[in-house]
Amino acid sequence: VQKRSEETKGKIIHAAATCFSKNGYDATGVSEICATAGVSKGAFYHHFESKQAVFLCLLEGWLAELERDLLALYQQDTPLPEILSRMTGSFQVIFDTAGDQLPMFLEFWIQAWRDPVVWSAAIKPYRRYQEIFAEMFKVGISEGSIKEDIDSKLAARTLVALAVGLLLEGLMDPDKGDWGKASAESVRLLVDGLKKG
Amino acid sequence: VQKRSEETKGKIIHAAATCFSKNGYDATGVSEICATAGVSKGAFYHHFESKQAVFLCLLEGWLAELERDLLALYQQDTPLPEILSRMTGSFQVIFDTAGDQLPMFLEFWIQAWRDPVVWSAAIKPYRRYQEIFAEMFKVGISEGSIKEDIDSKLAARTLVALAVGLLLEGLMDPDKGDWGKASAESVRLLVDGLKKG
Repeated sequence: VQKRSEETKGKIIHAAATCFSKNGYDATGVSEICATAGVSKGAFYHHFESKQAVFLCLLEGWLAELERDLLALYQQDTPLPEILSRMTGSFQVIFDTAGDQLPMFLEFWIQAWRDPVVWSAAIKPYRRYQEIFAEMFKVGISEGSIKEDIDSKLAARTLVALAVGLLLEGLMDPDKGDWGKASAESVRLLVDGLKKG
Repeated sequence: VQKRSEETKGKIIHAAATCFSKNGYDATGVSEICATAGVSKGAFYHHFESKQAVFLCLLEGWLAELERDLLALYQQDTPLPEILSRMTGSFQVIFDTAGDQLPMFLEFWIQAWRDPVVWSAAIKPYRRYQEIFAEMFKVGISEGSIKEDIDSKLAARTLVALAVGLLLEGLMDPDKGDWGKASAESVRLLVDGLKKG
């Protein structure tokens, strides 16, 4: 029973992702998600309180995946600038997966602006990435690859803001072929300025 | 007659800005704009083809103002890093004016994603700012304040992306008091890495 219940939950999440990205968040109803998933409304509400709850669950899943992918590139014996350069190599992949979902994300941000619950879910990953990169910059300073007078929190905040700006730019720009490369160059420009020697 | 016609146009634009920021772009109808402006639908359609046309006009106005404000800080005899530092000083002002209008901008981006006409209006200022800052970095290199091996276009693209990321972050973050200062620090971190000597 446990396994079947998990399967149903998975079907709902998958169906919601399909509906949101096809018709947008606002235009998608619970009925439509149920029809796409082939489950009853009773089953839906057994697993989720609302459409918003499914979205938050989807968002969490994506962010966990992204974090796993980024941290997989983190290796203790490699200098930080090199690690960051490898991470930006995965930008194009993120972009290729996220590209068609821009309207959904924007709708989600509108929701976040209007709803404190969604807002805290939207801001949490931001803070999380800022913390992760601040830790990395600290390591970079102590290993001697980053200048010692750099404020690791400021560097992390700046890197995250740059990544968000690049992502948004890439999503808006039709000339997607070069975006991954151009973004990696921008990150390298920032990191080069922080590098020691 | 010319003057009165311009007044009517101004009233419509002002009313549209009020309605969009209060109720959002999607939820605002031409009737509501007309009622708020105290003009007839005939007068509205004399000046604008559609609600979208008013939005584009508003956007153009804001961007022109922003460009004017930024360029006013540009003075030939001041080193570029100092000019950029002054420009980031005006971040808080931009933010204070734009803050409540985030949902409207996000709705506009959703439209842009779906509509090529809106898209090109949304991407144009991006390119324009990239060009302006690329020119400035060129001057910075030739005046000797920026390292000569810096690619001026890359530096401009990076600066614009960082500014957009910071703006989005600031709009999402409730802790608005420190945002202007924190953003200025991020821009300085990037620019310090490009500075000569």
